[in-house]
Amino acid sequence: MSHRIAVYPGSFDPIHNGHLDIIERCRVIFDEVVVAVLHNDGKKALFSVEERIEAIREAVGTSCRVESFSGLLVDFVDKVGAQAVVRGLRAVSDFEYEMQMALMNRRLNSRVETVFLMPKQDYIYLSSRLVKEVFSLGGNLEGLVPDGVLRSLSRRLRPDARP
Amino acid sequence: MSHRIAVYPGSFDPIHNGHLDIIERCRVIFDEVVVAVLHNDGKKALFSVEERIEAIREAVGTSCRVESFSGLLVDFVDKVGAQAVVRGLRAVSDFEYEMQMALMNRRLNSRVETVFLMPKQDYIYLSSRLVKEVFSLGGNLEGLVPDGVLRSLSRRLRPDARP
Amino acid sequence: MSHRIAVYPGSFDPIHNGHLDIIERCRVIFDEVVVAVLHNDGKKALFSVEERIEAIREAVGTSCRVESFSGLLVDFVDKVGAQAVVRGLRAVSDFEYEMQMALMNRRLNSRVETVFLMPKQDYIYLSSRLVKEVFSLGGNLEGLVPDGVLRSLSRRLRPDARP
Amino acid sequence: MSHRIAVYPGSFDPIHNGHLDIIERCRVIFDEVVVAVLHNDGKKALFSVEERIEAIREAVGTSCRVESFSGLLVDFVDKVGAQAVVRGLRAVSDFEYEMQMALMNRRLNSRVETVFLMPKQDYIYLSSRLVKEVFSLGGNLEGLVPDGVLRSLSRRLRPDARP
Amino acid sequence: MSHRIAVYPGSFDPIHNGHLDIIERCRVIFDEVVVAVLHNDGKKALFSVEERIEAIREAVGTSCRVESFSGLLVDFVDKVGAQAVVRGLRAVSDFEYEMQMALMNRRLNSRVETVFLMPKQDYIYLSSRLVKEVFSLGGNLEGLVPDGVLRSLSRRLRPDARP
Amino acid sequence: MSHRIAVYPGSFDPIHNGHLDIIERCRVIFDEVVVAVLHNDGKKALFSVEERIEAIREAVGTSCRVESFSGLLVDFVDKVGAQAVVRGLRAVSDFEYEMQMALMNRRLNSRVETVFLMPKQDYIYLSSRLVKEVFSLGGNLEGLVPDGVLRSLSRRLRPDARP
Repeated sequence: MSHRIAVYPGSFDPIHNGHLDIIERCRVIFDEVVVAVLHNDGKKALFSVEERIEAIREAVGTSCRVESFSGLLVDFVDKVGAQAVVRGLRAVSDFEYEMQMALMNRRLNSRVETVFLMPKQDYIYLSSRLVKEVFSLGGNLEGLVPDGVLRSLSRRLRPDARP
Repeated sequence: MSHRIAVYPGSFDPIHNGHLDIIERCRVIFDEVVVAVLHNDGKKALFSVEERIEAIREAVGTSCRVESFSGLLVDFVDKVGAQAVVRGLRAVSDFEYEMQMALMNRRLNSRVETVFLMPKQDYIYLSSRLVKEVFSLGGNLEGLVPDGVLRSLSRRLRPDARP
Repeated sequence: MSHRIAVYPGSFDPIHNGHLDIIERCRVIFDEVVVAVLHNDGKKALFSVEERIEAIREAVGTSCRVESFSGLLVDFVDKVGAQAVVRGLRAVSDFEYEMQMALMNRRLNSRVETVFLMPKQDYIYLSSRLVKEVFSLGGNLEGLVPDGVLRSLSRRLRPDARP
Repeated sequence: MSHRIAVYPGSFDPIHNGHLDIIERCRVIFDEVVVAVLHNDGKKALFSVEERIEAIREAVGTSCRVESFSGLLVDFVDKVGAQAVVRGLRAVSDFEYEMQMALMNRRLNSRVETVFLMPKQDYIYLSSRLVKEVFSLGGNLEGLVPDGVLRSLSRRLRPDARP
Repeated sequence: MSHRIAVYPGSFDPIHNGHLDIIERCRVIFDEVVVAVLHNDGKKALFSVEERIEAIREAVGTSCRVESFSGLLVDFVDKVGAQAVVRGLRAVSDFEYEMQMALMNRRLNSRVETVFLMPKQDYIYLSSRLVKEVFSLGGNLEGLVPDGVLRSLSRRLRPDARP
Repeated sequence: MSHRIAVYPGSFDPIHNGHLDIIERCRVIFDEVVVAVLHNDGKKALFSVEERIEAIREAVGTSCRVESFSGLLVDFVDKVGAQAVVRGLRAVSDFEYEMQMALMNRRLNSRVETVFLMPKQDYIYLSSRLVKEVFSLGGNLEGLVPDGVLRSLSRRLRPDARP
């Protein structure tokens, strides 16, 4: 019986309840889950990597490690001694992109398996991009993101709003 | 660190190398894999459940348990004490059907998680139906099914052939 | 301001909560909804057309007309004076089939428009086929079909069961 | 018999014949159609919101109201007293994006229904992006955009061309 | 400059205008087209292989060879000295099935290339199954099938009809 | 027996083995293949059009012509006297985009046929974008791009690396 570790990678800009749902499901299958925040210089993010890690830690408590990574995902997976990458699957368009990435990762490092989980149906339409767009237009995100993220979004996108 | 068991269900009529590839990948993630052969009265099969189990046992040796089941898959998963159902994903059409089944299974028993793995690229076009069709038309299946299955197919579909 | 009528066609063998959800949404858009049960000799059904109509009437009360039809759908739509056919969309595979049918129907009768609605997320995985399969294997359908359908399924598929 | 209003939202940069086809179909189903031009600061448009509204008004005459909106679509729908949002469906990739938006909108305001219509087959490949690209490369758009749009595209993208 | 031959295989039960459109496009690319009618004992057909060949010959005249085949498609392709199999692509679901078959055929005989063409947009929703269904329900197929097929369908499916 | 020419258009920024595989297959079907490098001012490329042409020439030798084009693809196809445009199909998302472009091109010039080929399974996940991303993160591209491209990528993206 070996200790099995999964890496759950993403931008998490910001983390939402669909991500948290996948993390919980992941913990049923694996002994340890490492949430890996992609440090991507090229893409403009709303929150810094440090802010994103902080938000995830606040939401998941001590149940998972949360780290940032840059470079190849498969190298990070090796470094933390994990056997698998976990990805959520929501839609057909997800599926094709994820398949492309999983096949490339398998070629880059055949020891790394990609495992797909399905989020709760309630979160099938959720994405970080949509979360930011809806919030910036004044929409109500209750039940879709953790409270800490709601507060951070308010400070960042509606600085003048008063409760 | 708990003992994690996965059920890999299917008709396996007959088992092919794409199935075997998923079983191997499964064993990287789980401590124990139970291959579960669906006993489906309604559907006409080429091989009996007993023959299918025999063929799988010959191919996987003692690395997995092989059992038959009828009734709800989630009840079988509970009975063997497994945490997850494993399914291979090859194509978009697979994905939608599998998603439907996984969501229904989750509703029937929320303790059962469905985990999707991707087979080796070489087997992406393989299916038991195609294996039988190609064989019956005289096509060469070497490298696509285990040797025992090749022999069984010969006995069943080309009884008059002589080496 | 004209009186707008929609036809909601299907096999409804049996009707489930995903169908009822579409009917309710339909009533927001149209003044009148005609549920049209396809009388299809070629396909083996679990319930007769009369039983299916009865089950739908019990579920929708007097809010809609319920009728059977055979022949071309567009002729039935014309006969009842409707402007549109309503169909629920759940998945990509649905979408392609529905698009094919809608384009053929438009060619057969350009006055008939096909309108697509999306069911509640909870019902995205539901189909009459799955309902029958799960029930016959002993699964719990509460919340997925109306009570009358549950009773009819029991009488038909589990005649020996006692409450 | 109530007065039913639909909102047909989009960027319409510029409007093309596929859009106009959806608007006509919409008018068969609804008593009133409000074409809603998205005022999106973040995205670079070829035409200003005012120019786009003008082009739509020229093409649809007095058959529809044409307005711009910013903020949440569902708030605009409420403001104009509409019951439904109308969207055209052309392809699988459309379908998944539209489904995501419709589910989010339903969550933001459950009174707003999203209704999908299919354009004429001739326009299945049309998009505003493709219209601009083809025009800028010298392609012939006759039959794909209204005449007014053709003139505007000429003034904007081929200012030196002489008839 | 070599003589290039393509095989266009199918059930053609019956041939429709979408098939004829692909054959015409095929003739732009290849020097010779062999229409290959699958002799499939297992599947119930409306027309015999001889009737289907006759209908195709009537529609294509002397522009193509029309033959029947049984056994592996790639063996037939070799036998007639062709370099390629031609298939029409209409929809995503087509695409996945066709990809599976093309990859299997490539494995069975790597000298045979599969070439995909797109039918005229007007025929994107056409299939032999739909043709038969619509006709048997009394729908008008003018412009969708050749005249000879229309007459054969009348004799077979509406024997009592009088002009 | 006429001389048949195909144009294989793309950005080729840079060319990879999936492209080369399509070019080889193309040569089985056509007498001559013209690789056409899109000169696209609007899109930021890693390599100049000249560098991309040079890399393709090095990889394909004298077996094909390699040219750049700007303007409408169908005009270029006419200019070189070709009958067809060749495109590789890897995934469902490819398929829909390619279908849109093929239908628009057919409208712009009905003499130009689009022909789809499938790359070798090993290259199904390959794209120029992925090649650049993996290389810039330090991944190993052996077997995925020609040697000349590997050297060019090193000079451009890892100028300080020493063998």
